[in-house]
Amino acid sequence: MKKEELVAQIKLKKTFLCVGLDPDVDKMPKYILDEEDPIFEFNREIIDATAEYCIGFKPNNAFYEAYGLSGVESLEKTIKYIKLNYPAHFLIADAKRGDIGNTSTMYAKAYFKRLEADAITVAPYMGSDSVKPFLAFENKWAIILGLTSNEGSADFQQLKVGNEELYLNVIRTCASWGTDQNMMFVVGATKAQMLDDIRKIIPDHFLLVPGVGAQGGSLEEVCKYGMNKDIGLIVNASRNIIYAGNGKDFAKKAAEEAKKIADQMKPFLNGKVSA
Amino acid sequence: MKKEELVAQIKLKKTFLCVGLDPDVDKMPKYILDEEDPIFEFNREIIDATAEYCIGFKPNNAFYEAYGLSGVESLEKTIKYIKLNYPAHFLIADAKRGDIGNTSTMYAKAYFKRLEADAITVAPYMGSDSVKPFLAFENKWAIILGLTSNEGSADFQQLKVGNEELYLNVIRTCASWGTDQNMMFVVGATKAQMLDDIRKIIPDHFLLVPGVGAQGGSLEEVCKYGMNKDIGLIVNASRNIIYAGNGKDFAKKAAEEAKKIADQMKPFLNGKVSA
Repeated sequence: MKKEELVAQIKLKKTFLCVGLDPDVDKMPKYILDEEDPIFEFNREIIDATAEYCIGFKPNNAFYEAYGLSGVESLEKTIKYIKLNYPAHFLIADAKRGDIGNTSTMYAKAYFKRLEADAITVAPYMGSDSVKPFLAFENKWAIILGLTSNEGSADFQQLKVGNEELYLNVIRTCASWGTDQNMMFVVGATKAQMLDDIRKIIPDHFLLVPGVGAQGGSLEEVCKYGMNKDIGLIVNASRNIIYAGNGKDFAKKAAEEAKKIADQMKPFLNGKVSA
Repeated sequence: MKKEELVAQIKLKKTFLCVGLDPDVDKMPKYILDEEDPIFEFNREIIDATAEYCIGFKPNNAFYEAYGLSGVESLEKTIKYIKLNYPAHFLIADAKRGDIGNTSTMYAKAYFKRLEADAITVAPYMGSDSVKPFLAFENKWAIILGLTSNEGSADFQQLKVGNEELYLNVIRTCASWGTDQNMMFVVGATKAQMLDDIRKIIPDHFLLVPGVGAQGGSLEEVCKYGMNKDIGLIVNASRNIIYAGNGKDFAKKAAEEAKKIADQMKPFLNGKVSA
């Protein structure tokens, strides 16, 4: 997907929500476990119910690999279902891959060519030759882990390297390998100063922001300091949407929750999109 | 596998070689492509031929995921084959995973419980809660990327954090979360000074050293500066062994290459093992 297409979708639908597809059979409605492929059925209902409130979907590989072959099959079916039925949605494989050059190339082919994902999340620790192979595919995206939202982000990402934190160095350096047309960054920052510092380095790149939905208030900070002229934000919410309910009406509950977040986004889009 | 069992195997077989299983259909003998599962058949022959010269096998996930579902199936069959036929071999899933806590837990279960790998490689960028879930399984191992052997390792791993390079900080910090009974480190260093610095921090941990086989000479440096009282080294070689030949005798050629490396290791084990 081209950047201009993604921006157009956000403006058209007045939402920059991405729904994270992290299926966990322990949290699904019990009745769905009787289906032949419960994970795919669960996802399909979530996707159909939430598609109008979001501009992207993000399956997290771990939740599929945990179920072995059948899980990987559910993942492939899910991705194909989205590509076929919702081709305008931005499809992120949240795989956090990154390996030496020829191995990263194998991953890039797997996700971009065979599965036709639009984007893959990439761990930067191994440096340039682990990241660059993901930049060699037209209209495909590497989404680099910049500053993650978990507690452990303090351990290394926030270490001082010279006068700045490592994550700023990682973002600056990685940005020099690509463009705002083939690279985005995972930015879990909800602190204004952090977003401000990041936007000074990459004013034009899209940021993938996890974990905002659950904490309501932080959406305001993220928009105030993270939004740019192209919106430049994809905000992901997973569990608070997909497990909003766990009865027969779980998809309806998920849609309500997605709509709620999308509605919260609208005021921040005022002036950026036509009414 | 317990550390003492791994050490016992190394001493018994007088080798600390690990064979990397990175199957690439473009490099395999043509005739094997007619098999129903060429990747598994290729691996099976390599495993049977090289097992006596090595103490471990390391399939790299990317090379399987690149082939989609059938590739993942080949990976599972390969792992089961090794567990069944060579239970004393140390089995490393080279997956380079690492995600927020609950997601890392999903990966840990997938690799340790379902696939019964002994170890998984882990990317440390996301910090403590991304690493610790891999340490919660008895006799299983997280092998943390410390200093990798690729060119890109200079980009971030070798940045100065205070008075030392980031990789030393990563190794020191990660080591504090586990023990030398559940954690190892990937150390691609062949420079004496680097190994020396690392051994000062973690004198007792095993190091997984990639890429030595191809460059002959460096084995000496690695042994001189990396070996400890328990040997403490697993040296991996992939392509130079598994693609040593590409005719009908490819497995024989692979065995010859594995034997050659194992023979090069013997002098360094003198005095550490009984004759």
